[in-house]
Amino acid sequence: MKVKDLLIGAAYYTEYMPYERVEKDMQLMKEAGINTIRIAESTWSTWEPHDNIFDFSKLHHVLSMAEKYDLNVIIGTPTYAVPSWLIKKYPDIMAITKHGQEIYGGRQHFDLTNPTFRKYCERITRRLMEEQKKYKCVIGFQLDNETRAANAANSGTQQLFVESLKQKYPDIDEFNHEFGLDYWSNRVNSWEDFPDIRGTINGSLSAAYKKFLRDVITGFLAFLASIVREYMRPDQFITHNFDYAWDDHSVGLQPLVDQPEAAECMDIAGCDIYHESNEDLTGIEIDFGGSIARSLKNDNYLVLETACQGLTQWLPYPGQIRLQAYSHLASGADSVMYWHWHSIHNAIESYWKGILSHDLKPNREYYEIKEYAGEMNKLKKSLLHLNKKSKAAILLDQRSLTGLDEFPINTVLTYNQIFRWMHDTCYKMNLETDIVYKESNFSDYKLLFVPALYSASKETIEKLRAYVQSGGHLILGFKSCFSDEELKIYPDSQPFMMTDLVGASYSDFTYPKNTALLLKDISGNEYKAPLSKWIELLIPSDAEVWARYDNPFWKDYAAVTHKKNGTGSVTYLGCYFEEKELEMLIKKVIQEEKVNISLRKEHFPVIIKEGMSENNKKIRYIFNYSSHSEEYCHDTDNLKVLLNNNEVLPLDGNEVVRPGATLKIEPWNLLILSEI
Amino acid sequence: MKVKDLLIGAAYYTEYMPYERVEKDMQLMKEAGINTIRIAESTWSTWEPHDNIFDFSKLHHVLSMAEKYDLNVIIGTPTYAVPSWLIKKYPDIMAITKHGQEIYGGRQHFDLTNPTFRKYCERITRRLMEEQKKYKCVIGFQLDNETRAANAANSGTQQLFVESLKQKYPDIDEFNHEFGLDYWSNRVNSWEDFPDIRGTINGSLSAAYKKFLRDVITGFLAFLASIVREYMRPDQFITHNFDYAWDDHSVGLQPLVDQPEAAECMDIAGCDIYHESNEDLTGIEIDFGGSIARSLKNDNYLVLETACQGLTQWLPYPGQIRLQAYSHLASGADSVMYWHWHSIHNAIESYWKGILSHDLKPNREYYEIKEYAGEMNKLKKSLLHLNKKSKAAILLDQRSLTGLDEFPINTVLTYNQIFRWMHDTCYKMNLETDIVYKESNFSDYKLLFVPALYSASKETIEKLRAYVQSGGHLILGFKSCFSDEELKIYPDSQPFMMTDLVGASYSDFTYPKNTALLLKDISGNEYKAPLSKWIELLIPSDAEVWARYDNPFWKDYAAVTHKKNGTGSVTYLGCYFEEKELEMLIKKVIQEEKVNISLRKEHFPVIIKEGMSENNKKIRYIFNYSSHSEEYCHDTDNLKVLLNNNEVLPLDGNEVVRPGATLKIEPWNLLILSEI
Amino acid sequence: MKVKDLLIGAAYYTEYMPYERVEKDMQLMKEAGINTIRIAESTWSTWEPHDNIFDFSKLHHVLSMAEKYDLNVIIGTPTYAVPSWLIKKYPDIMAITKHGQEIYGGRQHFDLTNPTFRKYCERITRRLMEEQKKYKCVIGFQLDNETRAANAANSGTQQLFVESLKQKYPDIDEFNHEFGLDYWSNRVNSWEDFPDIRGTINGSLSAAYKKFLRDVITGFLAFLASIVREYMRPDQFITHNFDYAWDDHSVGLQPLVDQPEAAECMDIAGCDIYHESNEDLTGIEIDFGGSIARSLKNDNYLVLETACQGLTQWLPYPGQIRLQAYSHLASGADSVMYWHWHSIHNAIESYWKGILSHDLKPNREYYEIKEYAGEMNKLKKSLLHLNKKSKAAILLDQRSLTGLDEFPINTVLTYNQIFRWMHDTCYKMNLETDIVYKESNFSDYKLLFVPALYSASKETIEKLRAYVQSGGHLILGFKSCFSDEELKIYPDSQPFMMTDLVGASYSDFTYPKNTALLLKDISGNEYKAPLSKWIELLIPSDAEVWARYDNPFWKDYAAVTHKKNGTGSVTYLGCYFEEKELEMLIKKVIQEEKVNISLRKEHFPVIIKEGMSENNKKIRYIFNYSSHSEEYCHDTDNLKVLLNNNEVLPLDGNEVVRPGATLKIEPWNLLILSEI
Repeated sequence: MKVKDLLIGAAYYTEYMPYERVEKDMQLMKEAGINTIRIAESTWSTWEPHDNIFDFSKLHHVLSMAEKYDLNVIIGTPTYAVPSWLIKKYPDIMAITKHGQEIYGGRQHFDLTNPTFRKYCERITRRLMEEQKKYKCVIGFQLDNETRAANAANSGTQQLFVESLKQKYPDIDEFNHEFGLDYWSNRVNSWEDFPDIRGTINGSLSAAYKKFLRDVITGFLAFLASIVREYMRPDQFITHNFDYAWDDHSVGLQPLVDQPEAAECMDIAGCDIYHESNEDLTGIEIDFGGSIARSLKNDNYLVLETACQGLTQWLPYPGQIRLQAYSHLASGADSVMYWHWHSIHNAIESYWKGILSHDLKPNREYYEIKEYAGEMNKLKKSLLHLNKKSKAAILLDQRSLTGLDEFPINTVLTYNQIFRWMHDTCYKMNLETDIVYKESNFSDYKLLFVPALYSASKETIEKLRAYVQSGGHLILGFKSCFSDEELKIYPDSQPFMMTDLVGASYSDFTYPKNTALLLKDISGNEYKAPLSKWIELLIPSDAEVWARYDNPFWKDYAAVTHKKNGTGSVTYLGCYFEEKELEMLIKKVIQEEKVNISLRKEHFPVIIKEGMSENNKKIRYIFNYSSHSEEYCHDTDNLKVLLNNNEVLPLDGNEVVRPGATLKIEPWNLLILSEI
Repeated sequence: MKVKDLLIGAAYYTEYMPYERVEKDMQLMKEAGINTIRIAESTWSTWEPHDNIFDFSKLHHVLSMAEKYDLNVIIGTPTYAVPSWLIKKYPDIMAITKHGQEIYGGRQHFDLTNPTFRKYCERITRRLMEEQKKYKCVIGFQLDNETRAANAANSGTQQLFVESLKQKYPDIDEFNHEFGLDYWSNRVNSWEDFPDIRGTINGSLSAAYKKFLRDVITGFLAFLASIVREYMRPDQFITHNFDYAWDDHSVGLQPLVDQPEAAECMDIAGCDIYHESNEDLTGIEIDFGGSIARSLKNDNYLVLETACQGLTQWLPYPGQIRLQAYSHLASGADSVMYWHWHSIHNAIESYWKGILSHDLKPNREYYEIKEYAGEMNKLKKSLLHLNKKSKAAILLDQRSLTGLDEFPINTVLTYNQIFRWMHDTCYKMNLETDIVYKESNFSDYKLLFVPALYSASKETIEKLRAYVQSGGHLILGFKSCFSDEELKIYPDSQPFMMTDLVGASYSDFTYPKNTALLLKDISGNEYKAPLSKWIELLIPSDAEVWARYDNPFWKDYAAVTHKKNGTGSVTYLGCYFEEKELEMLIKKVIQEEKVNISLRKEHFPVIIKEGMSENNKKIRYIFNYSSHSEEYCHDTDNLKVLLNNNEVLPLDGNEVVRPGATLKIEPWNLLILSEI
Repeated sequence: MKVKDLLIGAAYYTEYMPYERVEKDMQLMKEAGINTIRIAESTWSTWEPHDNIFDFSKLHHVLSMAEKYDLNVIIGTPTYAVPSWLIKKYPDIMAITKHGQEIYGGRQHFDLTNPTFRKYCERITRRLMEEQKKYKCVIGFQLDNETRAANAANSGTQQLFVESLKQKYPDIDEFNHEFGLDYWSNRVNSWEDFPDIRGTINGSLSAAYKKFLRDVITGFLAFLASIVREYMRPDQFITHNFDYAWDDHSVGLQPLVDQPEAAECMDIAGCDIYHESNEDLTGIEIDFGGSIARSLKNDNYLVLETACQGLTQWLPYPGQIRLQAYSHLASGADSVMYWHWHSIHNAIESYWKGILSHDLKPNREYYEIKEYAGEMNKLKKSLLHLNKKSKAAILLDQRSLTGLDEFPINTVLTYNQIFRWMHDTCYKMNLETDIVYKESNFSDYKLLFVPALYSASKETIEKLRAYVQSGGHLILGFKSCFSDEELKIYPDSQPFMMTDLVGASYSDFTYPKNTALLLKDISGNEYKAPLSKWIELLIPSDAEVWARYDNPFWKDYAAVTHKKNGTGSVTYLGCYFEEKELEMLIKKVIQEEKVNISLRKEHFPVIIKEGMSENNKKIRYIFNYSSHSEEYCHDTDNLKVLLNNNEVLPLDGNEVVRPGATLKIEPWNLLILSEI
């Protein structure tokens, strides 16, 4: 399912405003070309001030004004932050974690399995759905908000977990064996003896509990979806704002939610992408975040939250807000919605600023949105519902991410860093990538990157083998195919079941000290390059050795190998090195294996992203993510210019750019070209 | 109220001694010129070994010996550390914090509002007051010791807090609105639902609780004062040893106690100043600590604790103990009392050494005190009760300090750092500053520095406006006038209600990256200087732009502005830069506005401090805080030399220093001059 | 007691294997020359799956196979990790610490004094002893595993502690006085008021509790020993794997166990030595760890655990496993046993690898063990039961270690660092050292190093005095003889009772800033060297000043002094400086005092270790701990070559190396020479 129009919008909370200004705000939005607001997901205590006493006056005010000003509305169900009276009555709802029971105040710190909590969630959701029924402006619903299971280990939740284990392992001895519970006398000889999960030192068990908590989230969202669906019109949609692993901003695959599974109950995927701007804007988070969001329903997606001013340190330079908006569209987004319309005047997130600053007056940021909204209005026939399908894909896996959390390679090399190493290298060399999962059909990608697939069932490994055997080119990262689904390391040569296709195996690995990478460049000259954090001592059988170790004691081992397997190939990366060398190796695979991918001559900060418009014309975006101007030399087919920096060309115009032509891209600006 | 004589002394605890030596110690004190001891504030378990069983024999021994050796005694009430039996009987007295209930052992970790605690405090205080009544040597009383509210969130305390909110906000909706509790569904729709404050994520509420705990301290000290006052002679005084924000030593305004309010129940202000010595002695802590202490009763004050040897790393170089003592006097102190006479042989503070080392023998430090005590005895007629009134003041505000704790500018730029930036720059350029508060009358200062007055009521802002409008010169720091008293950000152009006087406004701010300061020096030449941590993008209306940003995207914004307002002026500092540039800007204000403050040519490490003696003669101290000798070139009126390095000149002598004369100051030494 | 044969072995757990392979494993061991396995200490939940239901089938399987393959077995009692059902039934067994009650899952987190725990420990131990009785292959028993008291402060444990204090101090006032409990009103006026030890701020009390917990361990091991002894054959032994202070690997004296006392119930001392390899292999941990283990029974000892591959970062270079094994023997070990035979496939320690990697196939590491096991088999007649007695010793003291934990010199200078400073300097200059304790007879050592003997009873100080007065040469480190056994600082000149023998005293100390060391080299030329972290300002009376401080204010104090006392001497090190200077000072003592120790010309990475073989021939090992080859120039008596790098010479051969001869030592290789 797709939205009907390009959504430009923001989260909007009249409840948080220092004074009543709904109409004033909506006038301002309208003038700027903002057409959508997102409301309601955090204001349960306003809708239900006392147990079973409801007050939806503010909801009606906002919705009727939205209808007056012709704004679309996405309504969020309000269950991620609960009223104080609910916890006063039922303190058990609060999550119990390793640190004890949570205290009321924050959000997403409940035991989602608590039946009382569920009961109250259902009632407020039903009431809210009833109240909004009559408003045509409501185009869809967001379930909860960045849902979390809060590491809850309340006894009820733990019982459900043990039940799930019992069902999976009717034989308790098999359970003990699979999880290695003999270690340190941790055997559970009858299910009644199952100890408090919070104390476990068993990485497999701990990972299984994390998986269970992800399933709890999937179940909770499906529970909300089933309620919402009872009240929905056929033209409305259900979505959710999935977010990403976080380290001051979005950095990779979200470890706490199984997004593809959780998205099954929804119509359109949604996401929250946050990134640095200012000197540090690269477009990378928009790219990988967009690829993940696109993968959830294999379709266009909504950016439900992204920063306008955002955190203090992110304040964008002039032009960056506009550049970011186009970057989302170039990844396949059908919306750009900000967190949030206005900045907040107290509570906790006062310095997570919105479009308007605290003075609530039109500002530089507001006018920049107005500028691009006007442009997009002219261009959206070509830009909306961009259809993307890359020739290369990256296979992501949450069990492997958890696996490397439980059994870290190295405290400074996480799963997401390895993913980002591969993604960012591709991004900077302008090789667009999709995201796939072990359940996906990835057979028609030319090139498949597999970062640290630490946890791989035999079935998954068979699927990778089949990919290669039918002509795929696999770039397999270190630590892949090492353990099974419960993180039990395969007691065999590594990479498990892949040594023949890789043409090498290993059993020794270490952190590099006094060790560099020795590798051949494209022209075959050997040179030395830095490596860090991890090396596997590969013993090649029939692979080509593409890189070795510069260390007298490890000199006979391989570092990177490559082996042709029929028309396919496997390139195995046995260590972690710099993006420059990874880029060179990717080029080498493409050239030597004649992979049907054309390498681009442009390089970051010039970024090219492509897709097909709804009427099946190729659309090419060319971005300049830098403070200096860049040149773009066109070298393929004739394309029409839709946007030349700040100049919008008519869709039916004839401003054509021909091979050999050169276009200038201003700092933090872009070009959009289209098939004629 | 002032003490009658200069007090040179130390804390003294016969209870902690490895063997009985009261008489021996007092002989040594007497010989050194030490005339005062401070006793009793931490030995409740000695006075009352079992519930309601008392033993004051050690008190009587010390007091009678003090009378024999003619020592003054200040008695501390012993309530900051309680006997083990009290907690065994009433465990609820221990504070409950975010980390659970405190365990007995430390000090100042009680719930000060606990009625049982109060009852026992009253009984021991009354008994102690009875016992000491007959001793003439007792000159005053110290209430408790560096009182703390221990972050207590016991349910009784929380109830009192909610009561205080109820009284302030009879309308609970107004309360919710003012505190922004709609955010994340935190509304409290009836007072009974008030959630445990320990969980709150609301910065305003958290700050209000901190304020409430400061009021608890004020109330507790007033409660003790009222008891003590029942037993006092008219010539005796009540004081308290207020301390400062701490980061290995005293670093700024104390966040946990409202000192001006708490001091209202006292007769003389007291303080504990700790600082580094050795290579790191600067006199800065003595200066700002003294200024704060002086501000509490607008009078001379007592230094009740300061380091002699202090912490291991502070061991003073020869001469520094003496230099420090004179530095206190030059700030208006009427006492120099050490923590403590003797070093401690076990427990916890064994390496917080006193005057005597662990061997309890006269040592280098003892003889240095003896040296300066002898000098001061000759000079004290001129030095005691120094009357200080500076031409410049710094406005400090505790709500703003808390505000920036709750809503940090940046993890590395605290309120106290901004205060210290202004203070230390003035100190080093020999511009003496007083400390004032928003309640103070600061109208007759020529220059008023306002560091980050983040929380400012409209009334306070009006007061600042009036200051400028009647000819004052205001140097207003970034982040000032931003939020109201409950930390609610003003929804208007910033700085709120000041944009006309500032002649500029802003709504964007960020952390600087690739950005420097471009400013004009005194001669009007533009140069570039480093800045860090914070920039506000000022849009000037009718202000002079005194500094801009060296960044292509921020080049049109102002960084520092200046605007004449009648005979007054406002200089607004929109970013954080180095002391050198701040010094230049201060000079520029003084010169361009012809402020009636004469700039000194001496600079740190030569420090000049002045005041008026009791008989109304100007006293000038000239200190050398360095390991090399310095020269002082006299250039104003004829003054008489009282102290020339280690030589005491007769008070009625005629050693006059005339303009043009040059005096040498030895390393870590000083001169004292006096009006003739 | 000594083992009869050289033990080469590994911990072995069929319980942890991914599939049954006991016979396969034992065949592999046998082929490699591995002759011993250690089993059973962590598998209580396998032996006793339910309360009082036992299943020893796996034990019998392993033991009967061991008999078949002629392997020695050491059986561990399984009490350090308990079954889940035990804690489900008796949750009180879990330790309660400052952080609350431990949760089941880890190991060694029980209250060892809990009577129920003891009862269950006794039953499982008796049952295990019964079951193994019939197997001749069992050569000995290991009690528990690296026993810990888990910082338990359960109320029962605390009561026992208070009882122990009551017995030691019948007069509670004496107790208060000795511990300085008057401080901060911490007095305990009746034993019933004794507060929860977890809250104490009294360093003496905290240290006494740590001592008490060490005694709890001693008692627990003695309790287990008494049970095991009931079932033992006379040829069997009791041992325990004592470990060391840990900081990513073994780093010094274990603070949590009183090893000499705990070893009293045992027949042979055992230890677990872990160290870095690869670029960071130095042999230092093997040396000091061996010296400590040797000191426990003053005899040969067993290395029960050491790393083969070990942690990922330790992966040894080719040759290092072999070099390490010989290094243990050269320290007096009679075994080299690895943690563990196989790597683990899940649970927690999957990346603490054993001999075999996860593929469980013979590998580089396996073949390297096979290589040296073959060599040792030929040489063991000469190498087993090496008798070592050094001319120098280092006096270690656990109360001083705890003392410096409670009262840190400096957060970056711990007791073990000071010990290691002295040890490592000696090691690198090839001056072998033994370890002694204050209870030891150390009178016949030529040179005695005393690192930071912070806690020293008068009796101990008298013993040091007697050592010097009868001709010993004492190198006394700073912070020695400072406090008594309860950490009460002596109220007298420091170092207490030693100022006459030292010829200097001090009462001031600090951290050095702008201060260097000025000292004379062997030729008498003064030079400047860096110092850091700690300086004592020594006032020399009649000592020679061997080093002073380069600081204008401290220039009159001494930094290092030396004083002849009859035929003995005391060298006092008043500060912390670099190993180079310490080495020079040690040489100076030896030369000036004509100490009967011959200084070697070899220096690290060439390390020489010596001892006497069973048939009383001198054995000399010469190691090269580096990646380059080294030369060894023989310069004393004629010795026979037993091992020349990888060449084993016949024991009855005549490959003699004469003075002046030069032998090459390959990288990470060694020579063994023997008296003819």
